[in-house]
Amino acid sequence: MNLSQVGETGLIQRFRRILGEGPGVIRGIGDDAAVLPYTQKEYLLFATDAVREGVHFILKKGPFYTSPATPYQIGWKALGINLSDIAAMGGIPRYAVVSLGATQNHPVSFYEGIMKGMKAMAKKFNVSVVGGDTDRTEKLSITVAILGTVEKKRCVFRSGAKPGDLIFVTGKLGGSRKGRHLTFTPRVKEARILTKYFRLSAMIDISDGLAGDLAQICRESRVGAVIGGKAVPLSKGATLESALNDGEDFELLFTLPPREAGRLIMKRIRFEFPTTPIGRIVPKKEGIHIYIGNKKSPLTGGFRHF
Amino acid sequence: MNLSQVGETGLIQRFRRILGEGPGVIRGIGDDAAVLPYTQKEYLLFATDAVREGVHFILKKGPFYTSPATPYQIGWKALGINLSDIAAMGGIPRYAVVSLGATQNHPVSFYEGIMKGMKAMAKKFNVSVVGGDTDRTEKLSITVAILGTVEKKRCVFRSGAKPGDLIFVTGKLGGSRKGRHLTFTPRVKEARILTKYFRLSAMIDISDGLAGDLAQICRESRVGAVIGGKAVPLSKGATLESALNDGEDFELLFTLPPREAGRLIMKRIRFEFPTTPIGRIVPKKEGIHIYIGNKKSPLTGGFRHF
Repeated sequence: MNLSQVGETGLIQRFRRILGEGPGVIRGIGDDAAVLPYTQKEYLLFATDAVREGVHFILKKGPFYTSPATPYQIGWKALGINLSDIAAMGGIPRYAVVSLGATQNHPVSFYEGIMKGMKAMAKKFNVSVVGGDTDRTEKLSITVAILGTVEKKRCVFRSGAKPGDLIFVTGKLGGSRKGRHLTFTPRVKEARILTKYFRLSAMIDISDGLAGDLAQICRESRVGAVIGGKAVPLSKGATLESALNDGEDFELLFTLPPREAGRLIMKRIRFEFPTTPIGRIVPKKEGIHIYIGNKKSPLTGGFRHF
Repeated sequence: MNLSQVGETGLIQRFRRILGEGPGVIRGIGDDAAVLPYTQKEYLLFATDAVREGVHFILKKGPFYTSPATPYQIGWKALGINLSDIAAMGGIPRYAVVSLGATQNHPVSFYEGIMKGMKAMAKKFNVSVVGGDTDRTEKLSITVAILGTVEKKRCVFRSGAKPGDLIFVTGKLGGSRKGRHLTFTPRVKEARILTKYFRLSAMIDISDGLAGDLAQICRESRVGAVIGGKAVPLSKGATLESALNDGEDFELLFTLPPREAGRLIMKRIRFEFPTTPIGRIVPKKEGIHIYIGNKKSPLTGGFRHF
């Protein structure tokens, strides 16, 4: 059996079975961040995410992304994707450590540029980069691990969506590969506002495309979903296709019980960021579908890592 | 300026200047783990370390190591080096997250083997692997981040060594590349015993060779050191050269004030692991030296990452 036969999700499910769930762990493998005991009122959040040359950025013109990344952008993105994971739990990012796989192809100033981009992101969100590790590799990679905190009441899992809940996204989706994947702002503040005013039932950040990440919420919550293709807010010039499959928008996908959804729709005009209802949660047996015009089709896709 | 001109330590010093020290951080970049606020009596420890194909293990016969690693050994080592970092602070490892850079060259069972090795190490030390991330790469790499805790009184930094302190190591050094680097046991229990009975002034785990890691303690503590080549306890068949330069012994190098050192020398016969005095700390201006017979030479070396 090879990786493309089982896919990333299949692989992670296998790892989950082998590694098990440790004692005292509130939530282990299977969410945007692990949820761990902390104080009486708060949980500790712990996650890791990497950017790799040729996968998450390119250094020379290539087929996947439109433009090569600057060192600053690589550092910005490496920390940003981790902050996005903490945002998806409703939490506040606090501390990061960095594992740099460095190649001999670049001067010291190149690596300093990466750290400057990382520092800019850290400063914007009051995060401290407190340690790391540096090794030689053949292709550049930066792996960040992040610690955050969240009030127990405001912690949002992937697993809480119920049939009848409405599905929302922040911002606009699609076309991230043209450049926004290197300059995006993780939705930490937006998630904090949402969890302050509303009881979200589930949340995830959109890293693997709307189709892939909605499927994650559905699997963890044991539900189905139906979305409207026309309802998906698209970035300028982006196609629905790219919003569903490309990923790296780093917007938030979340669900709300109908009453809360109604409150959000009333209140959101006072927020400085857009939230858009795109569909609703249905029983698991109904599967995951998308309406394009009047035509209802099974929703598959999302970014394939292998 | 390229990486080999500044070396790993020079690079980290540059990163440290760019990234700064965050608010509330007890100890950031520059120790085995970052030390963060936690409870009234305890600190949180946070570190990351990676193993990379061709650097920390090989999959086919090669010049650096004697034998190829099994998947199980790779997983064992990937978590073990992180536990070793927590041990070097005197702490208890608690939770880990894993970032896997996977290649298409191996079947799913290969990656399951890695996770089985990691699980065995986790189980041995009651650590929970709580999350991770999987991506496609060209060369296999596993980056682990670890969270631990330590009583404030028992937390040992690299920076506390004072002239007059005695220098000790646990276990035996050298020859790790012949295979022990894949099967070692991190010295978590040993560190806990040492910090229970003695006031250690500084500690580090030996990952880059005795010469390199002693230099780290000396830089962080702003001191010099002198060690006796004959005093260094060697593994069976190992050379002093390999103990000084190869690294990956994952034993502990620590310092004690003279009175505490005397107590350790009396008490250690009751411990189930050897500790050996190998030298003493001297003022910074005297530098770092080694006696080989009656000849005193500057001690340089340690594993060079670039």
